[in-house]
Amino acid sequence: MTKKTIAVLPGDGIGPEVTTAAINVLETIADKYDHHFTFQQGWIGGSAIDEKGDPLPRETKEMSAESDGILLGAVGGPKWDRLPGAERPEKGLLEIRKSLDLYANLRPVKAYASLIESSPLKEAIVANVDFLIVRELTGGLYFGEPKKREDIRGETQAIDTLLYKASEIKRIAERAFQAAQLRNGKVVSVDKANVLESSRLWRETVDDVHASYPDVELEHMLVDNAAMQLIAQPAAFDVMVTENTFGDILSDEASMLTGSLGLLPSASLGSTGVGLYEPVHGSAPDIAGENRANPLAAISSAAMMVKYGFKMEKEAEKIETAVEKVLADGYRTADIAPKMEEAVTTTEMTDAVIKAL
Amino acid sequence: MTKKTIAVLPGDGIGPEVTTAAINVLETIADKYDHHFTFQQGWIGGSAIDEKGDPLPRETKEMSAESDGILLGAVGGPKWDRLPGAERPEKGLLEIRKSLDLYANLRPVKAYASLIESSPLKEAIVANVDFLIVRELTGGLYFGEPKKREDIRGETQAIDTLLYKASEIKRIAERAFQAAQLRNGKVVSVDKANVLESSRLWRETVDDVHASYPDVELEHMLVDNAAMQLIAQPAAFDVMVTENTFGDILSDEASMLTGSLGLLPSASLGSTGVGLYEPVHGSAPDIAGENRANPLAAISSAAMMVKYGFKMEKEAEKIETAVEKVLADGYRTADIAPKMEEAVTTTEMTDAVIKAL
Ligand SMILES: CC(C)[C@H](C(=O)O)[C@@H](O)C(=O)O
Ligand SMILES: CC(C)[C@H](C(=O)O)[C@@H](O)C(=O)O
Repeated sequence: MTKKTIAVLPGDGIGPEVTTAAINVLETIADKYDHHFTFQQGWIGGSAIDEKGDPLPRETKEMSAESDGILLGAVGGPKWDRLPGAERPEKGLLEIRKSLDLYANLRPVKAYASLIESSPLKEAIVANVDFLIVRELTGGLYFGEPKKREDIRGETQAIDTLLYKASEIKRIAERAFQAAQLRNGKVVSVDKANVLESSRLWRETVDDVHASYPDVELEHMLVDNAAMQLIAQPAAFDVMVTENTFGDILSDEASMLTGSLGLLPSASLGSTGVGLYEPVHGSAPDIAGENRANPLAAISSAAMMVKYGFKMEKEAEKIETAVEKVLADGYRTADIAPKMEEAVTTTEMTDAVIKAL
Repeated sequence: MTKKTIAVLPGDGIGPEVTTAAINVLETIADKYDHHFTFQQGWIGGSAIDEKGDPLPRETKEMSAESDGILLGAVGGPKWDRLPGAERPEKGLLEIRKSLDLYANLRPVKAYASLIESSPLKEAIVANVDFLIVRELTGGLYFGEPKKREDIRGETQAIDTLLYKASEIKRIAERAFQAAQLRNGKVVSVDKANVLESSRLWRETVDDVHASYPDVELEHMLVDNAAMQLIAQPAAFDVMVTENTFGDILSDEASMLTGSLGLLPSASLGSTGVGLYEPVHGSAPDIAGENRANPLAAISSAAMMVKYGFKMEKEAEKIETAVEKVLADGYRTADIAPKMEEAVTTTEMTDAVIKAL
């Protein structure tokens, strides 16, 4: 019997509903495979601000650091939009990523055959989409200093700093090449090397790292072109690696391709130790508490935790297969239902997955 | 008889071919409407580096500043990719934008009924797409200082600076609201205010400016969400305004929606004086010199020059109608031809437009 402690950080909006769904699935898996999962809840984001006056209270940070895996819901919402930068819900997310050095954000994008019809793109374009975005998560514009507002000769200006060290680029490039070795052996590295100094260092460093992975094919692509190619020929990608801000934009763009934003999981990993697993979608405050959210992204994030964090391949596959089955069986939450009347609730969808396990 | 001097900067790759096409169209217009256009050619980009050792030679800068309008082809190519930042082709483009203070980049995105089939998106999604992206063009990461590489304790790092002054945001916001007044009265302002200081100043300043345009509806959208909405419901946009880097990425993403990248023009305008008009597409070195490039984006850019720069509404409309006619008549260059055998050449397409005038 394997024991694991899981830190659950529901966060805001639909976060609590979808993490509850994922917990239920994990408990079923534990029963089935004779594991013992202990769940510890912690505050993060807007609800942490409301309860504890801090988007990432010390207890949450400690508890997460000591856990075997962190399952996060979502953070943020209009309620906290007027707060200054350092006191916002998102700050909790940025801080936990940074303090646990979770520099590698993995976002798989895959077309589910049964959902292709709900894609805004033509079926021929998206049918074979199956790639992985590797986003650098603890550097760049999100964290660089100076990051401030100031008055210069009576005028307000604001500054953010895009800074990358070679070592930060090296380690994320290694992740990307390693991921490609387990997939189709192709990496596209995205930058804006025709304009940015940081991108030129990015490109050089990725080239250097590439020398140790001769079995992997490497292509450099400018970010504006990448934004086009994701739409024009998304099926051509295998692994895409890029810096924090570009990764934020491109991975959300990519999440729209297959018509399945509500299904996309992500994993944020460090060099060793605990990882953080969360849906790609946001906190969707407009439907919070209505039992309408799609729990599949959170459930798939739990599958990623079980796979990458606990090395339980079989269990992860079991969850993934269950998700595919409920979709093939026609279960649809409101976000992916062609007709509203036919939409199932969050709990109905979760129960269906559990039944399929 | 109106006299205008037009600076033509063909640049690299297919730039010379498509600017030649635009010149031919402008000469026909001049004949027809009894104007006198004088064309002066200047070096820019990679070819300027090769010929003059400088991506923006002084002669080009002076000649452009004194002209009534600048028609640019495209710059850049793999040949110059290994040069250091300050000596690259793109530097010529950045410098001419900056030195003429061309801070407002207008990129219309419109579905041509006759081309919708070549869009990667479903017809229902793109049919009514008709919006304008207003991109800030002389601030942000492209120009902020420090912008450099340095060694800190034996490790290389690189820095770019995202800096915006309130006045820079104010003037681009004004452009956007004014553009919206002439369109459908809706502005979406895109930022990353949940993470970036510059975006928070952006949002506040746009709100301030909005107070003077109560007839225009304003919505703020995070850049990652904007990247999704452009795909999910592009027809919902009217005017989108955003900072330089986000604008680069989102406008190229948008250029893919309607299946007509080879048709999209852009205008870069300053507070007063001369504007720069160029296709959204790049220099396409792979097909340079083969008489295969689509000249319609350059021709439409000429139409924008005539309209915004010379206030010749009638003449602009004439060109636009001719472009629509040749498309409706089935003329297709290789980029938009469903079958290669049916593709027309650059010169055939240009002649068709001239005939339609
Ligand atoms: C909430 C926000 C700070 C976050 C980010 O930009 O990293 C989110 O958009 C994401 O992609 O995980
Ligand atoms: C060539 C490059 C510097 C330029 C930019 O990023 O501004 C181009 O991509 C554009 O969008 O006009």
